[in-house]
Amino acid sequence: MNEQLQLGNIRDVLSRLEETILYALIERAQFHCNPTVYEPGRFGPAVGGLCLMDYLLRETEIIHARMRRYTSPDEHPFFQGLPEPILPRMAVAENPLIPNTINLNERIRSAYVANVIPRICAGGDDGQYGSSSVADVACLQAISKRIHYGKFVAESKYRSAPARFRSAAAAGDRDRLVNLITDPAVEEAVLRRVDLKARAYGRDGADEKARYNIDPAVAVVLFRDWIIPANKEVQVLYIRERVAKDSGT
Amino acid sequence: MNEQLQLGNIRDVLSRLEETILYALIERAQFHCNPTVYEPGRFGPAVGGLCLMDYLLRETEIIHARMRRYTSPDEHPFFQGLPEPILPRMAVAENPLIPNTINLNERIRSAYVANVIPRICAGGDDGQYGSSSVADVACLQAISKRIHYGKFVAESKYRSAPARFRSAAAAGDRDRLVNLITDPAVEEAVLRRVDLKARAYGRDGADEKARYNIDPAVAVVLFRDWIIPANKEVQVLYIRERVAKDSGT
Repeated sequence: MNEQLQLGNIRDVLSRLEETILYALIERAQFHCNPTVYEPGRFGPAVGGLCLMDYLLRETEIIHARMRRYTSPDEHPFFQGLPEPILPRMAVAENPLIPNTINLNERIRSAYVANVIPRICAGGDDGQYGSSSVADVACLQAISKRIHYGKFVAESKYRSAPARFRSAAAAGDRDRLVNLITDPAVEEAVLRRVDLKARAYGRDGADEKARYNIDPAVAVVLFRDWIIPANKEVQVLYIRERVAKDSGT
Repeated sequence: MNEQLQLGNIRDVLSRLEETILYALIERAQFHCNPTVYEPGRFGPAVGGLCLMDYLLRETEIIHARMRRYTSPDEHPFFQGLPEPILPRMAVAENPLIPNTINLNERIRSAYVANVIPRICAGGDDGQYGSSSVADVACLQAISKRIHYGKFVAESKYRSAPARFRSAAAAGDRDRLVNLITDPAVEEAVLRRVDLKARAYGRDGADEKARYNIDPAVAVVLFRDWIIPANKEVQVLYIRERVAKDSGT
C-alpha cells in the first residue's frame, strides 16, 4: 500500500501535527485577543478591505502557492485565485487520494476566531496586531492540515474494507459511516497525548512552573470538541465521494 | 525605569524566545538538509536569482514590513529596501534604545545555513523545499530577535553603571567591556533551561520516547557557542555606540 496510507504513518503525521498546533497556539497565547485584527475593513483599502489577519493569510498563501504548497494533497488554501507555482512539481508526489474538492477552511477560520482565540488569549487589546496575525496564520495552517488529513485516514480505512463503507454510504446512513470511521480508543489516546504535550511544552523548563501557557484542559477540549470531530467530518465527506466514484456515479 | 529595560522583564523575553527558537528548530528538523534550498539561482529568475530560502524570507519581510514589524526596536530585517508600513505606528512604542544601525543578520543567516542546518537535520534531500524554507524563516526570525535583544540588555546594564562602561569603552578595552556585560551564572542558567526545554518539547508526550527531535545537547551547543556570544557581541557594539553618543562624539 502507498506509504502515505499506512495507518502507522498517518498516526505519526497526526501526532506530529498536534505538536505543531500546540507550539502555534502557545505562540498566539502570548498576545491578547486583539479583536481589531479580525475586523474587516478596519485597516482600510491598503489591506484590500479584509481584516488584518485575512490580509496576512492571503499574502502568505500567495507566496506559498508560488512555492507549490497547494499542489500537495495534504495542503488546503483558505483563499481562491492563488498564483501558479514557480517551482517545478515534485517528482515523487504520487497522490493516493481520489480527486476531491473537500475544503472546510472557511468553517475552520470562523471557529478559530470565535472559539479558540477567546479561550487561549487574555481579553482586550495589546496593540500587537502584526505578531498576533503572524501567530494566527501559523495556527490556522497547522489546524487546517490536521483536520484535512482525515482524507488520508478515510482513504486508508476505505481500502481496508470497501464493501462495508459502500453499503453504509449507499444506504445514506451517516451514523453507520461515522461508526465505521470511529475508534474511541484512538481518540482517547490522542486526547491523552495532547494533554501530556500541552503540559510539557507550556512549562518553563527551569522551574517547572507553567508560564505563557495555554491551559492543557483547553487544549484537550479544542481537540475533543472541534479538531477531532472536524477531522471525522472530512472523513465522512471523503468516503461519500469515494464511494460515488467507485460506483461510477 | 522603562518597563522594557527592567532586567526581570528582559530575562522573561529572552526565556520566551528560547522556546520560540526551540519550537522552530524542531519544526525544521522534520525535513532533511535540502541544500538545494540554499543554492542561489537554483530556481532561476522567477525567484529573482536568490536561493529559495532567501526568496521566501524577502517576500515574508515585505509583508511583515507592511504590517510595521520593523518599526519595533526589537525587530531587524534581513533585507533592505522593504516597503513602508500600511498600519499606523503603534501609539505606545516608546523606544528606550539610542538610535543605532546594529544588525548582525547577514552573519546570522550564514551561520544558520552553515552550522545549524547540518546539525539538526538529516543529510540529503527530501524534496520538501517549501516546508523547509518556511521553517527556516521562522528559525531565522526567532534567532535574530533573541540575538538583537542584546541591545535592551546592554541599555539596561549601561544605565545601571554608566561610568564603568564609559571608562572601559574610552580605554578601547574590549575585554573589560565583555567582562562587564558577562554574568557566568546567568549564562549557565540559560543553558540549563535550554537543555530542559529541548528535552521536554522534543518528546512525544504519550510514550516518553524522543521523536522528530533535535538533540538537546545540540541545542545547548547552539546557544553556548553561537546565540549567547552573538547576543554579547550585540551588547558590546551597542555599548560602544551608547558611550560615543553620551560623550557627544
